[in-house]
Amino acid sequence: MFKTVAVPLALMGVFSFAHADEGQWQPYQLPQLKSELKRIGINMPAEKLADLNKHPMSAMVSLGGCSAAFVSSTGLVVTNHHCAYGAIQRNSTAEKNYIANGFLARGMAEELPAGPDARMYITDKVDNVTEQVMKGINAGMSGKARNEHVENRIKQLIAECEQDKAYRCSVPSFHRGLEYYRIRQLMIRDVRLAYAPSDKIGNFGGEVDNFEWPRHTGDYAFLRAYVGKDGRPADPSSENVPYQSKDFLVVSAQGLKNGDPILLAGYPGRTSRYKLPAEIRFARDVSFPAKVAESRADLAVIAAATQGNAGAGVRYASVVKGINNGLKKTEGLLDGFARKDIAAIKDAQDAEFRLWFAQHGSNKNLLKELDAVIAADMAMSDEEFAWNVASTSELLKSARTLYRLAVESEKPDAERHTGYQQRDMTIIAGKLNRLEQSYLPNVDQARFTAALQRYNQLPVKTHPQGLDVLLPTPESVAGLYQHSTLGETAKRLAWMSKDRKAFEQSDDAFIRLAVKLHDAGMSLENRRKELDGNLERVIPQYMQVVIEWKKSQGKPVYPDANSTLRVTYGTVAPYSPRDGISKGPFTTVEGIVEKHTGKSPFNMQDSLLTAVKEKRYGVFKDSVLQTVPVNFLSTADTTGGNSGSAVLNKNGELVGLNFDSTYESITKDWYFDTAITRAIHVDIRYMLWVMKEVDHADNLLKEMTVKYPAK
Amino acid sequence: MFKTVAVPLALMGVFSFAHADEGQWQPYQLPQLKSELKRIGINMPAEKLADLNKHPMSAMVSLGGCSAAFVSSTGLVVTNHHCAYGAIQRNSTAEKNYIANGFLARGMAEELPAGPDARMYITDKVDNVTEQVMKGINAGMSGKARNEHVENRIKQLIAECEQDKAYRCSVPSFHRGLEYYRIRQLMIRDVRLAYAPSDKIGNFGGEVDNFEWPRHTGDYAFLRAYVGKDGRPADPSSENVPYQSKDFLVVSAQGLKNGDPILLAGYPGRTSRYKLPAEIRFARDVSFPAKVAESRADLAVIAAATQGNAGAGVRYASVVKGINNGLKKTEGLLDGFARKDIAAIKDAQDAEFRLWFAQHGSNKNLLKELDAVIAADMAMSDEEFAWNVASTSELLKSARTLYRLAVESEKPDAERHTGYQQRDMTIIAGKLNRLEQSYLPNVDQARFTAALQRYNQLPVKTHPQGLDVLLPTPESVAGLYQHSTLGETAKRLAWMSKDRKAFEQSDDAFIRLAVKLHDAGMSLENRRKELDGNLERVIPQYMQVVIEWKKSQGKPVYPDANSTLRVTYGTVAPYSPRDGISKGPFTTVEGIVEKHTGKSPFNMQDSLLTAVKEKRYGVFKDSVLQTVPVNFLSTADTTGGNSGSAVLNKNGELVGLNFDSTYESITKDWYFDTAITRAIHVDIRYMLWVMKEVDHADNLLKEMTVKYPAK
Repeated sequence: MFKTVAVPLALMGVFSFAHADEGQWQPYQLPQLKSELKRIGINMPAEKLADLNKHPMSAMVSLGGCSAAFVSSTGLVVTNHHCAYGAIQRNSTAEKNYIANGFLARGMAEELPAGPDARMYITDKVDNVTEQVMKGINAGMSGKARNEHVENRIKQLIAECEQDKAYRCSVPSFHRGLEYYRIRQLMIRDVRLAYAPSDKIGNFGGEVDNFEWPRHTGDYAFLRAYVGKDGRPADPSSENVPYQSKDFLVVSAQGLKNGDPILLAGYPGRTSRYKLPAEIRFARDVSFPAKVAESRADLAVIAAATQGNAGAGVRYASVVKGINNGLKKTEGLLDGFARKDIAAIKDAQDAEFRLWFAQHGSNKNLLKELDAVIAADMAMSDEEFAWNVASTSELLKSARTLYRLAVESEKPDAERHTGYQQRDMTIIAGKLNRLEQSYLPNVDQARFTAALQRYNQLPVKTHPQGLDVLLPTPESVAGLYQHSTLGETAKRLAWMSKDRKAFEQSDDAFIRLAVKLHDAGMSLENRRKELDGNLERVIPQYMQVVIEWKKSQGKPVYPDANSTLRVTYGTVAPYSPRDGISKGPFTTVEGIVEKHTGKSPFNMQDSLLTAVKEKRYGVFKDSVLQTVPVNFLSTADTTGGNSGSAVLNKNGELVGLNFDSTYESITKDWYFDTAITRAIHVDIRYMLWVMKEVDHADNLLKEMTVKYPAK
Repeated sequence: MFKTVAVPLALMGVFSFAHADEGQWQPYQLPQLKSELKRIGINMPAEKLADLNKHPMSAMVSLGGCSAAFVSSTGLVVTNHHCAYGAIQRNSTAEKNYIANGFLARGMAEELPAGPDARMYITDKVDNVTEQVMKGINAGMSGKARNEHVENRIKQLIAECEQDKAYRCSVPSFHRGLEYYRIRQLMIRDVRLAYAPSDKIGNFGGEVDNFEWPRHTGDYAFLRAYVGKDGRPADPSSENVPYQSKDFLVVSAQGLKNGDPILLAGYPGRTSRYKLPAEIRFARDVSFPAKVAESRADLAVIAAATQGNAGAGVRYASVVKGINNGLKKTEGLLDGFARKDIAAIKDAQDAEFRLWFAQHGSNKNLLKELDAVIAADMAMSDEEFAWNVASTSELLKSARTLYRLAVESEKPDAERHTGYQQRDMTIIAGKLNRLEQSYLPNVDQARFTAALQRYNQLPVKTHPQGLDVLLPTPESVAGLYQHSTLGETAKRLAWMSKDRKAFEQSDDAFIRLAVKLHDAGMSLENRRKELDGNLERVIPQYMQVVIEWKKSQGKPVYPDANSTLRVTYGTVAPYSPRDGISKGPFTTVEGIVEKHTGKSPFNMQDSLLTAVKEKRYGVFKDSVLQTVPVNFLSTADTTGGNSGSAVLNKNGELVGLNFDSTYESITKDWYFDTAITRAIHVDIRYMLWVMKEVDHADNLLKEMTVKYPAK
C-alpha cells in the first residue's frame, strides 16, 4: 500500500517542470508561490488568494464548462458571450433576434430566463477526503472491485454533502488518484440574461478566427443570479430576487500594458501534463491521427447529407461546429507535436527519473507494473475508439442511455452507476429533449451507415470482443430508421419512465438494438473498470515517487486540470510563432475596421464602426496604442473550461476575460512551452467602451464598481 | 506648345507626395535631398552620390533586368542568385548539377561562361537630350507623326552614341515625355560565373515564399566581367582578361540593426505613381481582373495539357513560373486596392489640383484634353488585351516576329521600327532559339485553342477591328500545328534570313497566319502610335502644371521608374501587415531550421543545418539577435529590376542585396504606402557566413575588401 499524502507541502514538483508561468494551481497552493507572485509584481497577499471565502476568490463562479465572476453585490456575473450563447439563443425569435442584435435589459425586470438547465456554481468548501475515499481498500482487491469501491465511497461522500439541496458536490481525483477533494458548490438554479452584445461583436471572427491571433472578439456577456426570498437557491420563479453576492470584483478601466502581471482564476477542464512518453507517442502516432480521420469523414458525410438544404445545414450547424472545434484542437496538437518533439523531451525527463528511481525507489516492480497498465490502457482505448465509431448515431446513443437508465433504476439510488442517479435526471432529460434541435433522420442515417462502414475498415484487433455480430450491417441501417419512433421527442422522453421489461419487449428498432448491445457494452465497461482500478492503484504510487524525486529538487507542483477552481498567473506578452514574426500582445478597434467585410463572421455593426471612425475613445484610449485595445495575450496557463475566467491585475481588479488561446498553444494541454503558449483575453476597456459608446448599457456600468483612470 | 524644362530644380513635387522614404531618385537629384539623407543618418555627401563617375555610384552595374555591383578591382560582381540563374542553369548537367549543388570556381581559370546573351552594363554618362528630341515638333502634327518623329530622333541619338561599339545607349522618357535623357552604358559581353550557392540556399522557399515574409533566401551569386586585352568589351574568348573595375564596394561584415539608415542603388523597371484616378479605377475594376482571369485560365490549360507527363511539366516550369509571378503580383495589387482606396486618395489630390488649376492654369482646355486621351488610352488597352489573348501561341508569336522582321528589313536600318534594327538581331535570335526550352506542340496547341475560345467570349467592342474574320476558329487550330514546321528550332531560325516574298509564298500554316494578320496588327500599332503621340503631347503639359503646383508647396519629385539608374534611401524597419502582428525586420538562421522540411523548396543542405546546430556563427553573429541574420526589411522604394541592387550602410559599404518585397508592398508601384511598404534584402552577414562556414569560398572572401567587426 502506498502512503496517502496528508501534508500539501509533500506535493512538490512532479514530472513537468514548473516553468515561468506554467501551473494551474489549487488555491491552497498559492502561499508556496509567494516569491513567484512577487517576482512578476502581484500585490495581493498569497494567503488571501488561497482563501475561497475571501476576496477575490469568493467572487469566482462556475457555469459548468465555463468560468465567470461576480461584478456587483446584486448577483451580476460577467462571462463570455459564447458561454451565455444558449441563453441568448433560447430567447431569440425572428422578431426579437438577440443573437444578431444583442440584448440589454434596461432594468432587472427585463432580464430574461437563461433556461431550465442554466446553473451557476460558487465553490465554498474544499476538503481533502483522500482518507475517507481510500478507507477499506486492500492490496488483494481486483481492479474492478477497487474501482467500484472508490466510486461507492465517492457517491456516499457526495450524497452526504448534498443533503442540503442548495449545494452540488463532487469528489474529483487529483494526480490520477493520489488525492481526492470534496468540493461543495452553492448551485444557483435561476439564472437570467442581463446583457449581451450582438454576435457581430460577441462572435466577431467566428469559426474563422477560432484559436487564431490577431483576434477582435468582444466575447463577453452578463448574467444575473437569482434566489428565493430566503436567499437560498430556488427553481426559476418570478418571485425570486437577485442573489446578494457576498463578494464581487472591482473593474479597472485603466487596463494593462505589455509586461504587466496578471492573475487568472477559473475552472480549467482537463490537461495531460503528466503523461508518459509512450502515451504521447500513442496520441501522436495512433489515437489523434485516427480521431482526425474519423472527424473529417463524419464531417464529409454531414456536408453531403445536408447539401442544398439550408434548413438541414442550420440544424447541424452546432454539431459541425463541435466536431470542427475538436478537429482544430486535435490538428493543432498534431501540428505542435510535429513542431516540437515533446516525446523526446519527456524521454529525457523519464530517463533522469528512472536513474534516480534505481537508487531511491523501494518497490522495484513499480515501473514494470506502470508500463504494463499504461500499455493495457492504450490497447483498451483503441477498442473504445472503435466502439465510439460504431455508435455514430444519435438515436442509438439515446436508446442506449434510456435502456441503461431502466437497468440502473432497478437498483436503489445510491447503488446506481454514476450519471444514472436521481440527481442526474434533469441532465438526462435535458439532453434527450435538446436532440431535436440538431437531428434529422436522413442525416443521422447517413452518418450511421458511413460510420459502420468505417468501423468495418478498422483493424479487427481493435473491434470490441463479440461486437461485430451484434452490429447492423451498413446496408440494413435504413430499415432501423423506418422502424423507430425515437426521433420524435415526446416518444423519446416517454421512455425515461419505462421499465426494463418494456424495453425488452419493444419492437422499436433502435430500442431493440440498444438492448442487443447492452451486454457487450457492459463487458467493455467492466473491463474498463478493472483497468481503471489498476491504473488507480499503480499510478498514484508512481506519482508519489516522482513527487519525492521532484521534492529533492525543490520544485512546486500542480495537479492536472480536472474542472476544479484553479489559479494561474502570468504577464501580458507577445510571442513569435515563427522566426521573423511577432504577434500581439494587443489588437485595437482599428483592426476591426480592417477585418470588416460586411459578411459574417466579419460583419461589424455600423454603430461601432462609426464610433471608431469618429475616434470616440473617451477614457478607454490606451496611452501607448492611442486607441481602444480589443483583445490581448498573456502567458497564463489556461485550457478549455477557462472560458470566461476573470483576468485580474496586480491589485485583484478585473481587467479582462479569458476566452481562447492561440493555435500554437494547443499543445499546452500536454506540454507547456513558455515561449509560444499564450492565452487570449478580452480587454476590459473594449468591453466597457462598447457598453458605453455602442450599446449604451449605462445601467450596468453604474451597477458595477468601475475605477476610471485619472484624466 | 509647352515649355521644355531645362532646370532640374523645376522638377519639384509631382502628384505623389514625397513621404518619408518614398522616391526612386535620379542620382543628379540627390543634392536636393541633403536634409533628408542627413535626417536618416547617411554620412556620404549628396554631391558625391550624384556623380556617376565617383564612388559608390561608379561601382553599380546593370545586368539588363537585374542590378548588381562590383566588389573587387578585378571585375567581380555580386547580384542575386535568381539573376544569375540562367548562367548557372546553362552550365549544369546531370553529372555537374550546379543548380542543386552550387558552383565555386577555385580560381579565375575555373569560371564558367554565363552565356552568349549575358551582359553587364555600367552607366557612365547621362545627358538631358530633351531639346534634341523635341526639335522639329509642332502643334499641328498628328499623334502618329509626332510619335514617329520622337522615335526617329531617339534612334538618331542612339546611333550617334553607339558609334563606339563598346557602348549600349538608350533615350528613355521621364515623366511620360516631359524629359528625355540619353544614357550611355559600357556593355560587357564576356560575363562568367564565379560562384553560386546551391539553390537550396539561393532559392530557399522558392515559389512558396515569393513576395513573402518571413523570408530565408540566400539570393546571391557572383559573376565576373571580362574584356579584351585592350581593356575594351569583347565577345567571349579565352584570350579575354578580367575587367579592371575602376571602382568597387567595400563589404561591411558589421551589418545593420533595426532603425539603421540604408541607401540602395539599382535599375528599377517600371512604376505608375502618377496615374490619374480614372486609370486606377480602370486597372482595379477592369484590366487587372481580366488579366487575373486570363492568367488563371491559361495556367489551367497548361496544367491539364502537361498533367501526368513529368517531362512536359519541366518544359513548361519557367512559363508557369512567369505567369504565376505576374499573377501573384496582379492579385497583390488587387488585394492592395481592396485594402486601401487608392483611387479615393488620388481623387482628393486630383480635386485639390483642379481647384488650384482653375486659378493658376493658363490652357483652360488642358484637363478636358487630358481626360479624353486617358479615356482613349484605356479603350485601346482593352483592344490590345484582346489581341494578346488571341496571340497565346508561341508559334504565332514567332511567326509574327519573323514576318515583321522581313518587312522591316526592306527599309534602311535607321528607318526600321525599334526592336527590328541590326542592333536587335542577337536578341531576336536568342529568343527564337530559346523557345525550344519551353515549348511542346500539344501544349501550345491546347493553349492557343483555349485562348481563341476565351477571345470569342470577350466583349465584341474590345475585338480589334477586322481581326475576327482573320483568326482561325478554335476547331481549326489543330490543323495549323500539323501544317507548320516552325516548332523546329533550325527551321524557325532559318526564317530570320528570308525575305518578305518567301513569307508570302510559304504554305507553313503559322507563317501564313502571321502574313494574314499583319495588316490588322499594323493598323492597331498605328492607332497606338497616334494615341501615344497624343499622350506625349498632352501629358507632359499636364505634368508641367502639376509640377508648378507642387513646387508652390516645396515638394521634391522623382519620375516613374524606367529601368534607369536610381537611388533610394530608407531605414531598416519592421511593419505591421495587420493589427496585432508585427513582421521583421530580421530573420535568422534558426528560422531556416524551423522551415526545413527536407522537401523542396524547404530542403536545406546538411552542411548548413549542422553549422547552425553547432552555432558556428563566428564574427557574423549579431549582438542583439545572438545569431546570424538571414534577410532583413527596409523602407527603401524599390520595384522589379531592383533585384540584386546593392544595399549600402551610412558609409556607403555593402551590407545587403535587395531581392524582393513583401506581398503588402505590391501596390507600391501605384501608391507608396510608407506604413506597409518594405523591401526584402539578403543580409550580407548571411552571405559571408555561408561563404565562410558552408561553401568555403575563401578565395572570394579574400578577393573582396571585407571590414570585419572588432572582436
